[in-house]
Amino acid sequence: MSLDPARLIPMANAIRALSMDAVQKAQSGHPGMPMGMADVATVLWSNYLKYDASAPSWPDRDRFVLSAGHGSMLIYSLLHLSGFAHPTMEEIENFRQIGSPTAGHPENFLLPGVECTTGPLGQGLAMAVGMAMAERHLNSQFGDDLVDHRTWVIAGDGCLMEGVNHEAIGLAGHLKLSRLVVFWDDNRITIDGSTDLSTSENVRARFEATGWFVNSCDGHDYADIARAIDEAQAQDRPTLIACRTMIGRGAPNKQGTAATHGSPLGAAEVEAARKELNWQAAPFEIPDQVREEWRSAGSRGYEARTDWSTRLGDSEHKAEFERRMAGDLPEGFDLKEFVGDLVREPQKVASRKASENALAVINSRLPETVGGSADLTGSNNTKTEGLETFTADDASGRYVYYGIREFGMASAMNGMALHGGVIPYGGTFLVFSDYCRPAIRLSALQQARVVYVMTHDSIGLGEDGPTHQPIEHLQSLRAIPNLLVMRPADAVETAECWEIALQQKKRPSVLALSRQGLEQFRTEEAEENQCAHGAYRVKEAQAERRVILIATGSEVQLALACAEALEGRDIGADVVSMPCAELFDEQSPAYRDRILPNVGPEEILRVSIEAGTSFGWERYTMLNGLRIGIDGFGTSAPAPDAFEHFGFTSEAIVPKILAKLEA
Amino acid sequence: MSLDPARLIPMANAIRALSMDAVQKAQSGHPGMPMGMADVATVLWSNYLKYDASAPSWPDRDRFVLSAGHGSMLIYSLLHLSGFAHPTMEEIENFRQIGSPTAGHPENFLLPGVECTTGPLGQGLAMAVGMAMAERHLNSQFGDDLVDHRTWVIAGDGCLMEGVNHEAIGLAGHLKLSRLVVFWDDNRITIDGSTDLSTSENVRARFEATGWFVNSCDGHDYADIARAIDEAQAQDRPTLIACRTMIGRGAPNKQGTAATHGSPLGAAEVEAARKELNWQAAPFEIPDQVREEWRSAGSRGYEARTDWSTRLGDSEHKAEFERRMAGDLPEGFDLKEFVGDLVREPQKVASRKASENALAVINSRLPETVGGSADLTGSNNTKTEGLETFTADDASGRYVYYGIREFGMASAMNGMALHGGVIPYGGTFLVFSDYCRPAIRLSALQQARVVYVMTHDSIGLGEDGPTHQPIEHLQSLRAIPNLLVMRPADAVETAECWEIALQQKKRPSVLALSRQGLEQFRTEEAEENQCAHGAYRVKEAQAERRVILIATGSEVQLALACAEALEGRDIGADVVSMPCAELFDEQSPAYRDRILPNVGPEEILRVSIEAGTSFGWERYTMLNGLRIGIDGFGTSAPAPDAFEHFGFTSEAIVPKILAKLEA
Repeated sequence: MSLDPARLIPMANAIRALSMDAVQKAQSGHPGMPMGMADVATVLWSNYLKYDASAPSWPDRDRFVLSAGHGSMLIYSLLHLSGFAHPTMEEIENFRQIGSPTAGHPENFLLPGVECTTGPLGQGLAMAVGMAMAERHLNSQFGDDLVDHRTWVIAGDGCLMEGVNHEAIGLAGHLKLSRLVVFWDDNRITIDGSTDLSTSENVRARFEATGWFVNSCDGHDYADIARAIDEAQAQDRPTLIACRTMIGRGAPNKQGTAATHGSPLGAAEVEAARKELNWQAAPFEIPDQVREEWRSAGSRGYEARTDWSTRLGDSEHKAEFERRMAGDLPEGFDLKEFVGDLVREPQKVASRKASENALAVINSRLPETVGGSADLTGSNNTKTEGLETFTADDASGRYVYYGIREFGMASAMNGMALHGGVIPYGGTFLVFSDYCRPAIRLSALQQARVVYVMTHDSIGLGEDGPTHQPIEHLQSLRAIPNLLVMRPADAVETAECWEIALQQKKRPSVLALSRQGLEQFRTEEAEENQCAHGAYRVKEAQAERRVILIATGSEVQLALACAEALEGRDIGADVVSMPCAELFDEQSPAYRDRILPNVGPEEILRVSIEAGTSFGWERYTMLNGLRIGIDGFGTSAPAPDAFEHFGFTSEAIVPKILAKLEA
Repeated sequence: MSLDPARLIPMANAIRALSMDAVQKAQSGHPGMPMGMADVATVLWSNYLKYDASAPSWPDRDRFVLSAGHGSMLIYSLLHLSGFAHPTMEEIENFRQIGSPTAGHPENFLLPGVECTTGPLGQGLAMAVGMAMAERHLNSQFGDDLVDHRTWVIAGDGCLMEGVNHEAIGLAGHLKLSRLVVFWDDNRITIDGSTDLSTSENVRARFEATGWFVNSCDGHDYADIARAIDEAQAQDRPTLIACRTMIGRGAPNKQGTAATHGSPLGAAEVEAARKELNWQAAPFEIPDQVREEWRSAGSRGYEARTDWSTRLGDSEHKAEFERRMAGDLPEGFDLKEFVGDLVREPQKVASRKASENALAVINSRLPETVGGSADLTGSNNTKTEGLETFTADDASGRYVYYGIREFGMASAMNGMALHGGVIPYGGTFLVFSDYCRPAIRLSALQQARVVYVMTHDSIGLGEDGPTHQPIEHLQSLRAIPNLLVMRPADAVETAECWEIALQQKKRPSVLALSRQGLEQFRTEEAEENQCAHGAYRVKEAQAERRVILIATGSEVQLALACAEALEGRDIGADVVSMPCAELFDEQSPAYRDRILPNVGPEEILRVSIEAGTSFGWERYTMLNGLRIGIDGFGTSAPAPDAFEHFGFTSEAIVPKILAKLEA
C-alpha cells in the first residue's frame, strides 16, 4: 500500500490524538511514547504487519509486541482504528478505568490482538524471542503453508537497559531468529531525564556484538522507515532498527522532554498539539476518511488469511495443527499406564530423576513439548533420549540450550506458550527461581502454560551451601496467584504432578524436585491422580489419632518415620502428603475437613514438615500447631549432615511433638 | 616482585593441588576453575593486589572478588597460602563440611578476606562495581592518603551471560570506574559443554560498546598476564582482561572439558595431575619453599599498611573515617526531634513523601548515605535537596542515577555496603523488587545494611494496573530470612522505620511506601520508637474487646475506620499497626501476648487488613480469624475504585467481621 505522507500523516495523527485525549481524560498515562512512535507504527500496521482485524486469533498472523507497555494507548489506538472488535471508542474513553479492557498496561487476557502482557520492562522483547522461536519450530514441523510469519517489537530505552535484554538478544542472535524485528524508540529520554544521566552505551555496537543486524531510520520519515523494514526482512538474523524519534511528537511545547513520558499533557498543551498536528476532530472522534484508511489497512490480510484457511483445509496436518494451536492434549492422554508400571516396580530415585523418567514418556507422546535448561541440563534432568537440539540451522529440535540465562529462558517460554502450538518446559535450580521470578509472575498473570522444572529444592542439595539452598522459595512462589507449586514426594507423585502441569491450559506450574534419592511409598494402585487433590492421606493413624503430620516432597518419608515412632508410643498419627497447596485450597470444604479436621491442637496436633521457611505454614498447622522448618539460611555440608543440623530427623522431631502433646 | 616462572609455577601449582585434593576429599566441588585460573591469580596476588594477610580488614586494601564463586577453592587456597589466619589447613581439609568456614561457595560472613558472598552468578562482578564506586566516593571525601585502592574480579562465562552483567557493566562504563579490573576466565566451557552450544556473542565487542577498555592475555603466561594488568592500570575506564585459559589445567586427561567443572577429578586423574604438574607433595602438604614464597607475597603490603596507619593517625579525618568504616552512626543520632515536629504538626502525605521528608533530615546529618533510584527518582522521592549527582567526573556526589537497572542497582548497593564507609539506599516500585530479588537475598545473607525504598506498594498506585500492583511481594519479602520489611502507616511511622533501618548494622531493610496520601494518626508524643516493637496498639477497644484489627501501611487508616464502625455497634475493637512483622516476632512472648492474646476467635476475633495476598497472615489472625487481602492480580483503575473493587472499605469489611462474630 501507499507510503504517501498525505495518507499516512492523518493516520498517525489519529493515534496521537487518541493517545493524548485518552490520557488527558483519564488524568493518568503515558502520551509520549505513542505520539513519538505513531509514524513507525503506522507504516508497520498499514504496509507490513500480516494480520486481519476481523480474525485476531488467526494462527499465522504476525505477532506484534509492544514491549514498552506503558505506551499502551499506541496499541489500543492501532487495534481500534484498524477495526478490531475491541477496544471500542467507549472503551478507549474509559482508558485506565475499572472494568475496561484498556488497562494502564496492555493485558493479553483482556484484549485479542494484545499478544502478551507488557509493562514490566524488557520482558516484551524477551517474550518476542520465544514467539519467534515457536514460529520457526512450528514451521519446521508444519511447513511454510501453515506457519510463515514474523514477530515485530517496539521497545524503549528501558527495555534495552534491563538485564533481561542481554539474555534475550544473546539467545536470539545465537539462534539467528531472522523473523524477529525490533524497533527501538531511540528518543534519548527516560523518566529521570536524558539517557545521558545513566548510560553511555553504544546500543548498536552491543546488538552487533551479539549477532544482530542493526539498521536505523528517521522515525518520522515514512519512506525511510519502510526502507529500514525492507532491509530487515532480507536478513538471515534478527534486526534492530534504531528509530530516531521525538518523544511526545506533536505537543509543541513539551515534545522531546521527559514531561511527556508519564503524565497527561494538560488541556492547554493538548489544544496546542491539535493545532500543531492540524487535527480538527473533537476528542474521540475520527474523521471518516482516516477511519476508512485504517479499516483498509486492517483488512489488508483478509485474503492471505482466507488463502491460508484453504491451505489448512487441504492439509494432511489439519487436525494435528488445530489441536496443537488450541492447546489441547491428544485425546485420552494421561500417564496412568506409566504410573501403573511404577506402582508395580517401585523405584528409589531422586524426584529430578523421576521427572526425567516421566518426561521420557511425555516427550514421546506429546510432540508439542519443547524442553531446555539454563545450563544445568545434566542436573535438571530435562533432556530425554532422542530430543534433538534447537539450533540456528535447524529449528526442529525440541531441546534448547538456553545458556546461563534463567530470566531469558523463562521469558522465551512465556512467548512460546503465548504463541501457541508448543508446551515449553525449562530447568534451573529452585534457588534461582529468583533470577526469573519476574517472568514467573508474568506466566501466572498471562495465564500461560509454562512448566518450570526446578531441581535441588532444599538443603538436601548439600555441599553447595546457603547460596544454592532454597529456604524462602517454595513459600514465596506459593504466594504468587494463579501458579501451581508442586513438590512431589516420590516417583509416582512426580508423574502425577507432571500430568497435572500439562493439563493446566491457563496456569503455569513449578515442579520442585529433589537432588537426593526418595523412597517410593506410593505402591498401591489408585483410581485417580492423588496429587490432583493437592493433599491426601498417605498413612492413616493406627492408634487413636492425636497427630496429623503434613509434609511435602523429600520430607514425606521423614513424616512417615516420625509417624512410625509415634505409633510405637501408641500415639496415632496420620501422614498427609501435600504436593500442591494451591490445589488443596481449591478442594471442597468437606474434603479439606476430612484431611485436616478443623479442631484445635488439644484434640489433634497438626505438624508441618518442610525443609524451608516455616513462614505461612500456620495456614495448615494452625497457629498453635507445630512447624518444622528452617527460618535462617542454609549450610554447606553433605545432605545428611545438613538435615541433621537443622533437626530434620525423626529423633529430633518426635520429642518436639511429644512435648507439644504434653503441654 | 619476580615473575620468574621458576618461582610462580610452584606457587600456582600449590593452588591446583589444594583445589583438586580438597574437592577429591569432599567428593564434591569445582576443581576446573581454580586449576584454570591459578596462574592469573598467582600473578595478581603475588605482584599486584594490595593487601596484608595479617590485617584482612585494612580499609585501604584492594578488594578481590571471586565472582565465579563455585571456584571457591581458588580463594581458600589464596587466603591460606598467603598467610591469612583462616582457612587453616584443617579447614581446607574440611572443605564443604559442616561447621567449616570453607563452604561450597565463599561466604563473607565466614572468612575475612572474602569480600562478598558469591555463587549466584553475575552478582560478584556487579557487587564489585559498587565497591569501586564506594572507593572513588570515599576518595573524594577523604583523599588519596586514606582511600586509594582497586577492585579486582575473576568472572566466568556464567557471570558474563547473566542479565545482571549488562546492567553492571553499563553502570561501570558510564561512571568510568577505572579502578575496576575484571579477569574473564575465557575457557569456552560451561556446565552443559562448549559455550558454542548457547552463545555466539563477541564478548569483547560488547564490553567495548559499554565503554570498557578490553585487553587479553594468555592466562597461563605470567609475563603476558602482568603486561595485561599493567595496561589495565593505566586506563581511565574499567578494564576487562580476557584470559585464555584451559579449564582444569594440569589434569592431563580431563583438562579443557566440562568434566572438570563441577565434579571431583577422581583418584586416578588426581594422581596423573600430580605427575603432570610435577607436584610431589602429599595431599594438603605444601613444600616449605612454596609456602615461604606465598607468605612473602602475603606480607608484601605490610609496609604500605603501616604507612597508611601513620597517615591515618596524622589525619584530621581520623575519627570520622574510623566511624564511617566501622559503620557506626554519629553519637546520639536519632530522629526524635523530627518526629516531635511531626507530632506537633501532623501531615497528610503519601509515605513516599514522608520518606523524602525524613531523608532530608537524614541526608543532612549522615554524610555516609548514598542514594539513588532505578530511573524513578521523582516517583520514589529518593533525591533530597542539595544531593549532588555521582558522575564519571565527580564521584563526590551522593546521588546515583542508576538507570533502568534494578538488579544492577541492588548489587551495587550490596558492594557499597560491604566495602564500608557508606550506607546505600535506592528506590524502585515494590513490584519490581522481583527484578532485584536475587540481590535482596544476598543483602540478607551477607548481612549488608542496604535500604530498599520501594514505593507504589499496593493497588493504591491505581491506574498502572496488574503489572505494577504488588500482590505477593510483601509476604514474599517477609519470607526472606534476616530482612526487615517495613510498611509504615503515616509520616511518624515512616520516620521511625527509617531510624530502624539505619540502625541495622547487619541487616538490610525494605521500606514499602504508598503513592497515595495517608492521614497521620500518630499525634501524641511517644517516649520510644513505637515501630521498633514491630507491632503496637494504636487504638484501644472502648466497648468490651471482641475484635483486634491488625493492619499495615495504608490500611491502618481503614482499620481505624472499621473500628469506629464496630464501636458504634458496641463491639470493642483494638487496632494494631504492624509496620514490621519480623520485629514483632522478635519481641518477648509477654509483649506479643499483650498485643495479640493467644485466645480463640470465640473470645477475640483477629482480623488482618493488608492490600496484598492473605497468604501467611494466619500467623497473626489464627486459622479461624479473618483475613482481608487480595488473592488474585490487581486491576487498572483509579485508586479509590481499585480499593472499592477489592473490598477495601469499611462498608465491605465490617459486615464480614459481624458475620464472623455471629458464626
